[in-house]
Amino acid sequence: MLFMVQMTVKKPHDIDPAVWADIIAREREYGQKFMKNGKFPHIWRVVGKFSNVSIFDVESTDELHQILSNFPLFPYMEMEVTALAKHPSALN
Amino acid sequence: MLFMVQMTVKKPHDIDPAVWADIIAREREYGQKFMKNGKFPHIWRVVGKFSNVSIFDVESTDELHQILSNFPLFPYMEMEVTALAKHPSALN
Amino acid sequence: MLFMVQMTVKKPHDIDPAVWADIIAREREYGQKFMKNGKFPHIWRVVGKFSNVSIFDVESTDELHQILSNFPLFPYMEMEVTALAKHPSALN
Amino acid sequence: MLFMVQMTVKKPHDIDPAVWADIIAREREYGQKFMKNGKFPHIWRVVGKFSNVSIFDVESTDELHQILSNFPLFPYMEMEVTALAKHPSALN
Amino acid sequence: MLFMVQMTVKKPHDIDPAVWADIIAREREYGQKFMKNGKFPHIWRVVGKFSNVSIFDVESTDELHQILSNFPLFPYMEMEVTALAKHPSALN
Amino acid sequence: MLFMVQMTVKKPHDIDPAVWADIIAREREYGQKFMKNGKFPHIWRVVGKFSNVSIFDVESTDELHQILSNFPLFPYMEMEVTALAKHPSALN
Amino acid sequence: MLFMVQMTVKKPHDIDPAVWADIIAREREYGQKFMKNGKFPHIWRVVGKFSNVSIFDVESTDELHQILSNFPLFPYMEMEVTALAKHPSALN
Amino acid sequence: MLFMVQMTVKKPHDIDPAVWADIIAREREYGQKFMKNGKFPHIWRVVGKFSNVSIFDVESTDELHQILSNFPLFPYMEMEVTALAKHPSALN
Amino acid sequence: MLFMVQMTVKKPHDIDPAVWADIIAREREYGQKFMKNGKFPHIWRVVGKFSNVSIFDVESTDELHQILSNFPLFPYMEMEVTALAKHPSALN
Amino acid sequence: MLFMVQMTVKKPHDIDPAVWADIIAREREYGQKFMKNGKFPHIWRVVGKFSNVSIFDVESTDELHQILSNFPLFPYMEMEVTALAKHPSALN
Repeated sequence: MLFMVQMTVKKPHDIDPAVWADIIAREREYGQKFMKNGKFPHIWRVVGKFSNVSIFDVESTDELHQILSNFPLFPYMEMEVTALAKHPSALN
Repeated sequence: MLFMVQMTVKKPHDIDPAVWADIIAREREYGQKFMKNGKFPHIWRVVGKFSNVSIFDVESTDELHQILSNFPLFPYMEMEVTALAKHPSALN
Repeated sequence: MLFMVQMTVKKPHDIDPAVWADIIAREREYGQKFMKNGKFPHIWRVVGKFSNVSIFDVESTDELHQILSNFPLFPYMEMEVTALAKHPSALN
Repeated sequence: MLFMVQMTVKKPHDIDPAVWADIIAREREYGQKFMKNGKFPHIWRVVGKFSNVSIFDVESTDELHQILSNFPLFPYMEMEVTALAKHPSALN
Repeated sequence: MLFMVQMTVKKPHDIDPAVWADIIAREREYGQKFMKNGKFPHIWRVVGKFSNVSIFDVESTDELHQILSNFPLFPYMEMEVTALAKHPSALN
Repeated sequence: MLFMVQMTVKKPHDIDPAVWADIIAREREYGQKFMKNGKFPHIWRVVGKFSNVSIFDVESTDELHQILSNFPLFPYMEMEVTALAKHPSALN
Repeated sequence: MLFMVQMTVKKPHDIDPAVWADIIAREREYGQKFMKNGKFPHIWRVVGKFSNVSIFDVESTDELHQILSNFPLFPYMEMEVTALAKHPSALN
Repeated sequence: MLFMVQMTVKKPHDIDPAVWADIIAREREYGQKFMKNGKFPHIWRVVGKFSNVSIFDVESTDELHQILSNFPLFPYMEMEVTALAKHPSALN
Repeated sequence: MLFMVQMTVKKPHDIDPAVWADIIAREREYGQKFMKNGKFPHIWRVVGKFSNVSIFDVESTDELHQILSNFPLFPYMEMEVTALAKHPSALN
Repeated sequence: MLFMVQMTVKKPHDIDPAVWADIIAREREYGQKFMKNGKFPHIWRVVGKFSNVSIFDVESTDELHQILSNFPLFPYMEMEVTALAKHPSALN
């Protein structure tokens, strides 16, 4: 079951650079875990913004919130979640 | 080169049903042409709306506008176009 | 799996009253079918508006879109769909 | 008499973690008091956000404001309050 | 129990003047009924707009929706409903 | 001559509690002075928000700005001012 | 006492040209009456829009609404009214 | 002196195709007159929309409004006008 | 050539009062220089806000930006600039 | 291939002036590099704002994001990216 999640990161200007670098590293490791197990099939960078467009494939809304709210960057992110269904024109 | 295009159809209430059915049929045929040649790899229905989230893979912005503006439904659609780039966390 | 759906009806001023009355009747009958089978546990009227707040309990986003897009009033409605998860404070 | 209240928490980045943990604990205890006495029948987590959708059943608007404004998290929350009425299609 | 209701009338350009005049007349008569029985203590015209700011004093949200949705102008109005409570500084 | 003023207070998280308490006390005293002399006939709390809906009765826009801009809370408030006129349906 | 009124005209596409021309002519005549008696000291065209920025100098909000609501174009206009006061830096 | 003008065309669905085709032809001819005389140095199509981004080089705001308001498509267009100045980093 | 500029000041809560007082003083002196030389014919205070509506009469957009960006309060202000032209109904 | 990028700088009030001056200097040097190599043909200052309208001519969206995200001011900027195509009326 698919959801689009548009994430925008709002980095506090006065955050300690070392703290931030650690969060970013853990964020990538955490995300790639779900990319490898098929829960997180797509992620694209939005040009010109600290934002992405992501597609998640999950079993339930609870599972999706579990994944999203445990992103290390979650406290610094604004997320828009859009429920997706199969399009009548889609070939796959 | 990837673009997300979010399309919302605004169907006039007083349009002739036969005319509309013909437009919908031509729309599907037109779109699937590009799905088959790789220009239009993804399309998902937004739950609860006459809208979709589409991903296009094109060579230029002119080519993208050429494809989009010739959709039979184009005069009845509002489109938001978002330029996408490779995300540093993406595995593929 | 729960979703909140906020529906607002935009009634065309020049629609035939008999046609509209028929749509409303079919709408109620259609909705109550899902209320009885547990898919549609809550619906409340928003005071002062031709709108409602509804809670749906479904197995997938495709099922939700199937239900929503077949409401007789669907062509006259704007819908906002919000995916819900269990709240850590909830008792039930 | 029912009201929907959509609450979004805006956590200051530089708040003392111990202070925040205490507020969260008191918030849960305070909310569950009203869940038990029937004033607060529903609360759901909005997927991807530090937000909830809540339904309150109160005797007056003054009582509702009394409950809401005494939530420990109140100073850190934005609330949208929507007055609800019985929907003509509702079975219960 | 008080509610502010901000009403804006959207008059269709092509409506029959006689029909409209009749609606306006019934609207005034209907509203003044509630002004006389205390349910509708205040109504002011918003300068420069076909809008008003109204204060209603009702027993429940259901009663408020009953009053509002039976205004003859209801199908042509957009309403914003704000629940009000006693202000700590208020003298009365 | 009537104006509606909708005030929303944005309290800085890091302000000294004693300083804030003093501002609140002076704010109430200042407001009640105008309530007593008829310039400030109505104030209601907006349920769920640190906001109010106020009605002022003044001789000029300069007088209104004089009153509003000298509220002790003024630097922490966002105000929307709406000019009101007599409504044709109003009984009083 | 000064007010800024920003007016935007929304001309229906299907209105009879002769009817429209008559409204425009009466609109100019009506407005210039108040320009001559000092109630309407300024009017400027907003570049690129069928809009204007106007300054009115009136005795009361009731008088302002009386003037505005009797503009022949009133049914086709959206107006934003802003109450103005003397600026501390103003020389005149 | 430069201005950016972002124009969006809102084509009425029920307009006579021949009438519309004539307007489009006159629009192109009218615009190219100013492109040739240097008043209208840039025009680009916004991908996915019946919109453009245009740059005008004029002597005054009155001249700009004169040009814009006489576009044959003007009654069907929404325009956002942005005054531009030389950027400190610009090389030309 | 006329422009309307709507300025809103966003005063940081934690700024040194003496620093702020100095900026305000320099702001008034700077603005009045242009009021005296005719570049800045009108300024009005927006009731209830730390905002103003100003009219500038300049030779070019570059001159306008030069004036605006050198206001001492510029770093603390949000400005909306509207290009104005002569209105067909204007008498002067 | 052309893109419009509208950039708005949000300067933190409490940033060290020397740090800021250095960023600005590097920003200009960085931008002019691309102006000279044809990737960045246009940049204009938006009157009254710390914003610009820029036109980029790039080979891909990835290249555009690479350029934009490495602007020294990037962490302090909000960017709107608009994909542009050749306009049918354009002469060049």
